[in-house]
Amino acid sequence: MNTFTDHPHRRYNPLAGEWVLVSPHRSKRPWQGQVEDAEVPDMPAHDPDCYLCAGNTRINGAKNPDYTHTFVFDNDFAALTEDAPAESFRDGLLMAEGESGICRVICFSPRHDLTLARMAVDDIARVVDAWVEQYLELGARPDIGYVQIFENRGAMMGCSNPHPHGQIWASRNLPNAAAKETETQRAYYDQHGTPLLMAYLAQERALGERILFENDGFVVLVPYWAVWPFETMVLPKRHIRSMEEMESDERVQLAEALSKVTIRYDNLFATSFPYSMGFHQRPTDGAAHDEWVMHAHFYPPLLRSATVKKFMVGFELLGTPQRDLTPEQAAARLRGLSDIHYLAG
Amino acid sequence: MNTFTDHPHRRYNPLAGEWVLVSPHRSKRPWQGQVEDAEVPDMPAHDPDCYLCAGNTRINGAKNPDYTHTFVFDNDFAALTEDAPAESFRDGLLMAEGESGICRVICFSPRHDLTLARMAVDDIARVVDAWVEQYLELGARPDIGYVQIFENRGAMMGCSNPHPHGQIWASRNLPNAAAKETETQRAYYDQHGTPLLMAYLAQERALGERILFENDGFVVLVPYWAVWPFETMVLPKRHIRSMEEMESDERVQLAEALSKVTIRYDNLFATSFPYSMGFHQRPTDGAAHDEWVMHAHFYPPLLRSATVKKFMVGFELLGTPQRDLTPEQAAARLRGLSDIHYLAG
Ligand SMILES: O=P(O)(O)O[C@H]1O[C@H](CO)[C@@H](O)[C@H](O)[C@H]1O
Ligand SMILES: O=P(O)(O)O[C@H]1O[C@H](CO)[C@@H](O)[C@H](O)[C@H]1O
Repeated sequence: MNTFTDHPHRRYNPLAGEWVLVSPHRSKRPWQGQVEDAEVPDMPAHDPDCYLCAGNTRINGAKNPDYTHTFVFDNDFAALTEDAPAESFRDGLLMAEGESGICRVICFSPRHDLTLARMAVDDIARVVDAWVEQYLELGARPDIGYVQIFENRGAMMGCSNPHPHGQIWASRNLPNAAAKETETQRAYYDQHGTPLLMAYLAQERALGERILFENDGFVVLVPYWAVWPFETMVLPKRHIRSMEEMESDERVQLAEALSKVTIRYDNLFATSFPYSMGFHQRPTDGAAHDEWVMHAHFYPPLLRSATVKKFMVGFELLGTPQRDLTPEQAAARLRGLSDIHYLAG
Repeated sequence: MNTFTDHPHRRYNPLAGEWVLVSPHRSKRPWQGQVEDAEVPDMPAHDPDCYLCAGNTRINGAKNPDYTHTFVFDNDFAALTEDAPAESFRDGLLMAEGESGICRVICFSPRHDLTLARMAVDDIARVVDAWVEQYLELGARPDIGYVQIFENRGAMMGCSNPHPHGQIWASRNLPNAAAKETETQRAYYDQHGTPLLMAYLAQERALGERILFENDGFVVLVPYWAVWPFETMVLPKRHIRSMEEMESDERVQLAEALSKVTIRYDNLFATSFPYSMGFHQRPTDGAAHDEWVMHAHFYPPLLRSATVKKFMVGFELLGTPQRDLTPEQAAARLRGLSDIHYLAG
């Protein structure tokens, strides 16, 4: 096993059914390429030009309420709409079908200048509450088969407004990743009678080397098959298929786990760390889905510093994703950081 | 079929076995997010600090020859190495194996200031010759099962040196994308007795609406299931499994196709258009692979201008890739452009 710390190897992701190429020796390579802008940390608590701040008017003329915690509204530029015709088209190798759905925006806080990493755990717990509510409301509709909750954090991740917010895209059909994870989890469950991610978590807890944080309800770890340099997963300690199955103390424990991982991320390069994160959980197609274990993925692009990211390009797009440091090295670095935010106090 | 020009729908990619979400109405959305640096077009023909220019010394002390067309050398920071131990490891859900291979860099021209879009077709044909040579040499080795030829063009695509060059990563195992394309092409071939991509090309040529260019040997088109805003594919008109099966006039025709598509790309936003491109072709595992049709994919990130790209983030990473304009709209725009480079003459 020791050779897998120094030599190129590939690891299998049993959840996605794909390989990742690991090239540990490559982290020594100098970087002369594109350098990103660092995040600008100085922001007002309220920005009169921000279309997400409380009381402001949005581009379509709607006025935001004076919300005090979270605020959810339908996306003004939704990628999915409720009225998309359901018809399907097939002509030889050309195949398409209408896809309907609902896209919402969720403001995490009225404070323009905060991020999850700088919010109090109790306030993050209000965000968790809002996610659960949305999952239940949207998931109950007969025309919604999956509720994808996610956040694009930072301009580097295509986020066009620094105001802390996430998105929800709920669709009739399963998105690709959810369909794949349903397939892999189902196959494992049928064969072993236990959920794949519960078995995986038991292994990781026995080994310990990729774990960053744990409380009574949740574990944060760098998966054995991580693709992004500092990718993590948040997993529940008991078999929770979807958000609404959490007890109220588990909601706070999830909020604490999200707080701890985002604080460490910010501390890693002393910057407001960009990422895409989101939850994968039980499809809302009415089936029991006992194979499913709800979890969150964090996909952060930074590799070496606040301004040098990993590019998922040529070989990654046309071949296999490739990473430079091992998941164990990433976990050790994140574990070694304080979980008090570098801007706090 | 007409509703698929205005309403959200999904299209199936039979080569990758995956869906893409198309949201045509969404191209009207304003962009307030990250704006990229435009490419700097003014460069010397020879840069004494460039480690790819003829006659210069590389970081490891090796001196480049005074090459006049192409120049191939082993990557000084290879992600794959020949000596990686082949052992494999399995412990429950943790699964890894050694991966060996060879990474090479191929300079397309001694001229530091050119790109494929600004090179003469005859000079691009010399690059095609070098690719064929590499495919044959590396593919003949018993320890190489696949030869991935690609180019990352532009800083936005993680390219750290503007000198025109591409890469070759040859590995023992099939990369994910090649494994998937082998599977889908094999299934189709077994069922229909004709290669998937030959059937697809026949359909596209009958319809015409997604085709940008064709000569006697090759067709350039925007695939029906394109993910990137201006994604294209280059396909041979006859059943060619891998590069070395091209006749000498076909090599020149391929060079011409590459020239035409990259010129249109540059003309689209009057910039040196960034992309990742690469060839998928027959694995070098010794099998016949009659299901395989060699082709090139171009994955360019720009969406609206030289500085606004499409971000493949939250929903794309955690759900399904999503695009804003239809492939037909993209094809019409590219077709409407001149195929004389905007900087020429
Ligand atoms: O090898 P290069 O050009 O230094 O690196 C570039 O291409 C590689 C192959 O697609 C990627 O893994 C790197 O992230 C990218 O920066
Ligand atoms: O919806 P937004 O924040 O405007 O847009 C952002 O997130 C979307 C969902 O991941 C992506 O499709 C866009 O490319 C990205 O810029």
